[in-house]
Parts: sequence; C-alpha cells; structure tokens
Amino acid sequence: MEKTIDVVAIGNAIVDVIARQQDGFLAEHGIEKGAMTLIDTERAENLYAAMGPGIEMSGGSAANTAAGLAGLGATAAYVGKVASDQLGQVFRHDITAQGVRFETAADAEGAPTARCLILVTPDAQRSMNTFLGACVNLTPADVDEEVIARAKLVYLEGYLWDPPQAKEAFLKAARIAHETGGKVALSLSDPFCVDRHREEFVELVKHHVDVLFANEQEIMSLYQTDTFDEALQKVRWEVEIAALTRSEKGSVAIDRDEIHILDAEPVAEVIDSTGAGDLFAAGFLHGLAQDRDIATCARMGGICAAEIIAHVGARPQADLKALVAERLG
Amino acid sequence: MEKTIDVVAIGNAIVDVIARQQDGFLAEHGIEKGAMTLIDTERAENLYAAMGPGIEMSGGSAANTAAGLAGLGATAAYVGKVASDQLGQVFRHDITAQGVRFETAADAEGAPTARCLILVTPDAQRSMNTFLGACVNLTPADVDEEVIARAKLVYLEGYLWDPPQAKEAFLKAARIAHETGGKVALSLSDPFCVDRHREEFVELVKHHVDVLFANEQEIMSLYQTDTFDEALQKVRWEVEIAALTRSEKGSVAIDRDEIHILDAEPVAEVIDSTGAGDLFAAGFLHGLAQDRDIATCARMGGICAAEIIAHVGARPQADLKALVAERLG
Repeated sequence: MEKTIDVVAIGNAIVDVIARQQDGFLAEHGIEKGAMTLIDTERAENLYAAMGPGIEMSGGSAANTAAGLAGLGATAAYVGKVASDQLGQVFRHDITAQGVRFETAADAEGAPTARCLILVTPDAQRSMNTFLGACVNLTPADVDEEVIARAKLVYLEGYLWDPPQAKEAFLKAARIAHETGGKVALSLSDPFCVDRHREEFVELVKHHVDVLFANEQEIMSLYQTDTFDEALQKVRWEVEIAALTRSEKGSVAIDRDEIHILDAEPVAEVIDSTGAGDLFAAGFLHGLAQDRDIATCARMGGICAAEIIAHVGARPQADLKALVAERLG
Repeated sequence: MEKTIDVVAIGNAIVDVIARQQDGFLAEHGIEKGAMTLIDTERAENLYAAMGPGIEMSGGSAANTAAGLAGLGATAAYVGKVASDQLGQVFRHDITAQGVRFETAADAEGAPTARCLILVTPDAQRSMNTFLGACVNLTPADVDEEVIARAKLVYLEGYLWDPPQAKEAFLKAARIAHETGGKVALSLSDPFCVDRHREEFVELVKHHVDVLFANEQEIMSLYQTDTFDEALQKVRWEVEIAALTRSEKGSVAIDRDEIHILDAEPVAEVIDSTGAGDLFAAGFLHGLAQDRDIATCARMGGICAAEIIAHVGARPQADLKALVAERLG
C-alpha cells in the first residue's frame, strides 16, 4: 500500500487547562513539580476549583506532535478518544483545523473528555495533573488497519500505557506498521510514566520500537543510570534511532554508529516548557519522513521546540514550515 | 625501557602576570578578548606599565598541566626554556616544588624569561598577551631521549608552534615516543593558535597525534566547521582519542566507535577560567596513564578543571588527588 501519510500519532486526547501559579501552590496541594500525575474525578474537581482562571486549549502529547507535523507541512493523522461532549468537540475542532486527519469515533457514553490541569511556575516548569476520562475507552478497534498501513511512521506516546486497553491498541498499530514496512516511534513521555512502566518499556524499546524519543531524565530513569552518558551508552544498542533531548543543553541523535551532538536553538525567553518534547518529536519525525540525516532531523526538532517554549501552550503559533526552512537555510 | 614516567609535558615556560580589568581596558589597548596574542618587547613593556598591579605566578599551558599531574599523584616531567634570571628561578622553583621533574637548562644569554600579561574581565574570561622571550631558544637538543623513552605519554601544547625551533623539538619527542611504545597527546591551545598553524595542525593530528585535546572553538577552527557536531564527526576519524571541552556544557570523549558525553562538574562560582583546559588535560592524562576508560578520564579532567576555575590562577590550590578520589567515589 502506498505510504500516503507521513505520521500517524496515537495518544491520549486531552484538553489542557493552563494556569500560572507560584511554587507555594504546588506545595500546598501536594503537586509533584515537573511531573505528570494521574488524578481521579474528585481530585480533578477540587484542583480545578482551587487553581483559579486558566486558559483551555487542546493538548495531549502525541496530539501536539501531530499538530506540529501538520504545521510543518507533513501529512499527519491522529488516533485518540474523546467523549461526545463540549470539550470533545473543541478537541476535534482544533486538531482538524490544524490540518490533522482525526477520525476516531467519540465515546457516546461514559466518562467525559480527558483534561489536564497544568500549573506553570515562574521557572517555566509545568506540573501536570491528568484526569484520563474518555481516554480509558481507547481500544484496538480504534486503530484503523488501513490508516496505519498507509503511514511511513507510527508515533506513540508512553502515556498510552496508563489507560488499560490503549496498550493493546499500541501493540496492534506497531504490528501493522512493521508488517507494512513502516517504522514505529515511541516517546517515553515523562520520568514518572517510565517509573510506572519501566520493565515493559525496556522490552518494548528493544523489540517493537525503531525510533525512541526521550529526555535526559526519562532515559536515565528507563535504564536506571546515574549519568546521562551511561544511559546513552545503553540505549545506543537497544534501538535503531534514539533522539535524546537535554533542554538548554540541546540534543543528542544516535543511529548505532553515528552520534550527533546538537546545540539548543536560540530562544529569546523561555515562557512555558509545555510541549517542548512533543514539538521536538514533530520536527524530528518530519525530517525522518523526508529521509533527512539524523543530525538534520534533530536540528528540525530543536527549531520546533524553540518555537513552542517561547509562548504559553503546546500548539505552535508561528508558521513552523517557514521557520524551519529559514533556520535550516 | 621501563615506563617510569606517566607524562612528559613540553611547552613554553612562561610566568603569568594576572590583573583584573574591565572590558573597556581591552578595547582601549586593542586586546582581543579571550585570545592569546603574541607581543614583542616594546608592547610587553607598554602593556605592563598600563595594566596596574598584578599577581605573578608560574604558568605556561603544558606546565600547568604538568603541575596538575603532579598534584594528582602522577609522575610528571616538564621540558621548557627559561632564562637565567629572577623569573626563570621563580618558574623553576614553583614547578619543582609542585613535584614536577624539570631539568631543561636555563638560557644564560639572550632574551629574558617569557611572561604572559593576562587580563581577567568580570565575566571570568582571560585575554592573554604573551612575550615569548627565552622560549624561542627551545631546541631539539633540550628533548632528552631517555626521559621521553621512559614516558607513557608525551603531552605537547599547540603554542609550541609559535617559537621557531620548538616545532623540531616537538617532532623529535613525538618520534621517540612512538618508537618506544609511548603515546603522543596534543592540545590545540587556542583558536587563534589554530588559525596561525591550521594546515600543519591538521597534518600533525592525522599523522603524529594519538590523543587530541581541544575546546569547542579550537576544534571548529581546526576543521573550519560552523557547528560543533560537524567538527566532532570530522575529528572522530582523524585521531584515536579526542577529548573535547565545552565549558559549562561539559565535555565529549571520543575513541573511534565510542562517544561519551559528560556534564560539567559543579562549580560554586567561576572566578577565572585561566587554566581550565590545562587542568582538564591533567585529569584526563592521569586517567589514561592509569588505563582508565575514556569516560572516567573525561570525568577526572572535568573535576580538575572545576577546581582551577573556582579561583584566580592556573595552578591547583586544592589537593587534586583527594578531590578526584572523593568525586569519583
């Protein structure tokens, strides 16, 4: 089947509720800084009541990546579960308006659309509290064989390991991708997510993943090392391509024998780091879909990440396609 | 012959005169910031008169490295030319007192002992103005065959390319080292030094050097690349071992197939970056002499560099041996 889609991204379909808060608020409400914590309905309601006015915008890690890919001019599709409610409509509108193909059926009954209460502290760190809602109803049936078969790359977020059936959807997509000559990419999502699913992730990376995305904390957590270098030496022989992001220290792109060390792209001021990893993945995957070398892929990722951290929110505001063309020269 | 010496360092024997100055002073006197500039007798006198009170201390890039090695507990020897004058006696006293074997005969006539007028600006950058003096009289006759034959490693500073006959001394030492099973290490010294001798350095690295030390600017200058990564990809196949330092971004140690990325060691406050590269080389070479893996060598280098930049001057003040033992754990 012809590969007419660059990337199919699969993830938890979530609407973000973003508010700025001081560090004291995190302490007061027992929120782990920089982490993504899963919360239940009651906690979601209490925290939402306490956190004051926020900005609501469509989010979800892999959905942000899909939106970035569309902004870069790539052909992107998204698979994720929303409910038939208002926020579900908002999510569908936003991702479709960005140019991403999104055909997963909404869930007519059960839990409402997922939301993530994000507190941004003055140091631009984000602390996320996710109520999974309708995401728990994503199943293998939502993965359309034909869509996967048409994709060069299938991109999966590690957060998919949290809802009970999404893992099966994930493995189904990976299997179809490999059977049809596609590649499977995975983002480790966050160090606490790695903590929750370490053993399964190690196996997954070794046996089902071709392209791994992780930041410094995540890769060190995956292989339980004390230093970045030890994790680097480990991951090198576990996966074909690894793209490791290091915030202001830039990124490292690895393809077995090849190791490239890229500086961070310049940013005037870091406003909100939400989405940095998601947009790095978008740029990198876009490069891979274009058969670029991995050093260029990493630069493209860095350029997209630099755009997203210069403003609040994890969806691009600039013309990413033009930005990458200009920066790459 | 038994290898009873860990490292013989060969370099320009220089006494440093260090003064703190504002950036305006550099502009006023046409001093290139961060560079090492060669100056003649007249310029040396004028600049010394203008720069006000300074601290005088024995220096010279490879001599700093030798002092660091001795401080680490290694057996180190030094080859370099001083004059039979007061500063020459100071230089000899200091390096010998540190535990370095130094037997190069002083020059009885001709130019006085070399000095380097170092201006340290508030950003901890140092701008160096070197009057080579007696260094121009270092010749192959000063390289003792037996001393080189007893050394595991011969370490040479790129600055040796500036005095006319030192290059021959350098090549003689490299030849003897290789004939007797020793290794040859070279530091590129500074980007302007690389500019002055680029073609010769490229050939030298390819054909005579086993271990190359360079910082980011130097390696990019050597191979005339726009990015650190391009220089990294180039140097990888030109030399057996390369140790590339990146200031606060840490270091990268390369041994063909192996690439290690090390974070900078913590420093409370950077006071004066003079000697950071020299002491990094000391730690790294000490590790090599002990047959440590290159990742550990780079960590040892980083620990020594962190000590030296936390105070004024390029000779260690702390017990380096104890410091490295403690930090390595």
